[in-house]
Amino acid sequence: MSRALHDVATGTLFGVALNYQGLLNQHLAAFNEPPYKQPPVKPVLFVKTPNTRNQHDHAVVYPQGIEHLQPGPALGVVIGKDASRVSVEDALDYVAGYTIVNEFSLPEDSYYRPAVKAKCRDGFCSFGPELVPTSQVANPQTLDIKLWVNGELRQSNSTANCVRSVAQLIAELSEFMTLHEGDLLITGTPEGRVDVLPGDRVEVEISGLGRLVNHIVAE
Amino acid sequence: MSRALHDVATGTLFGVALNYQGLLNQHLAAFNEPPYKQPPVKPVLFVKTPNTRNQHDHAVVYPQGIEHLQPGPALGVVIGKDASRVSVEDALDYVAGYTIVNEFSLPEDSYYRPAVKAKCRDGFCSFGPELVPTSQVANPQTLDIKLWVNGELRQSNSTANCVRSVAQLIAELSEFMTLHEGDLLITGTPEGRVDVLPGDRVEVEISGLGRLVNHIVAE
Repeated sequence: MSRALHDVATGTLFGVALNYQGLLNQHLAAFNEPPYKQPPVKPVLFVKTPNTRNQHDHAVVYPQGIEHLQPGPALGVVIGKDASRVSVEDALDYVAGYTIVNEFSLPEDSYYRPAVKAKCRDGFCSFGPELVPTSQVANPQTLDIKLWVNGELRQSNSTANCVRSVAQLIAELSEFMTLHEGDLLITGTPEGRVDVLPGDRVEVEISGLGRLVNHIVAE
Repeated sequence: MSRALHDVATGTLFGVALNYQGLLNQHLAAFNEPPYKQPPVKPVLFVKTPNTRNQHDHAVVYPQGIEHLQPGPALGVVIGKDASRVSVEDALDYVAGYTIVNEFSLPEDSYYRPAVKAKCRDGFCSFGPELVPTSQVANPQTLDIKLWVNGELRQSNSTANCVRSVAQLIAELSEFMTLHEGDLLITGTPEGRVDVLPGDRVEVEISGLGRLVNHIVAE
């Protein structure tokens, strides 16, 4: 039996940007311009604040006055014990299990802007439907990840295309900060994000983890 | 009697960047370059993750391999009840009280980079020594804010120089996200940040709120 996901994943929700190779490739030209002048050399982290927490089968509110709302399908990794300076080899020992995340955001022109306003609206981080223990996930880098809108397949990718594996992310992040039991790592959204509208039914499916369903509603 | 600060301020630690007029002025030229081409029109928010929580009289670890560590003196505002779409006029009714924050960070060349790695090291957000109720702070925009390092005054400013007042921040932020009881708003650090080193005693003083002391120690 898996423990109840939302009783376990009570910590910080860490997002990792640009963790799919296809997405990174799309931005390489821009990263070679000022002010960066090179692509990021370390994981680009952001935080989904606690007001964004949401769950399977619940509504996601489409804010008034915006032009676009985009779901962000992602593999979620729930940390099982405090991790500080963990090696890549040991990293998966610190995982309690996996789940599906749909990390909503308002699209932005630029990866340079601090993203709290675009990513941290109330209810903008749905995850579930359950916590799948590591024993049931042989390899987190071979999972199909799919986005369905109103039953239509709109994104399809594989965690094989991640720039950094789950183990690499845990190792690189725990090098400079302690990851705590109950933290959730959102390991990245693939390229090709789509717009959704009030009335849409949005589903994210990941091999072996089930389907996370959310309903977009008008404010 | 004030309630114990760290039992009340258990929520999200929200930082506001560029909220002192002198600091904003220093960056205006850069903001007129790409990719921004204009100064920010809204509060620039960041999050100090829970691993950064620290308190009065405790140590702050100087990470190995860095070149500079900078304290960030700031007025802290503890939210007293959930705030969503609050007007400027009503905003201070949502404040439980005030405290001193020292928000440490590793200096960065650019305000464009996501700042988790620079701002979210373990213990990088000290606050205290206590929660001072609003009844004891007649006007949060007339407070002197001072940084002392080893007894020497290194920064001196006033919350009168804030770009946005406490009330304006609460109104503008609660427009797009719910601020929860127990959240802490870190209302900005003035220009002129200084470097500190292991062995240093760092104190932040704000009129009527006391002094927050921390000790920098080697890793």
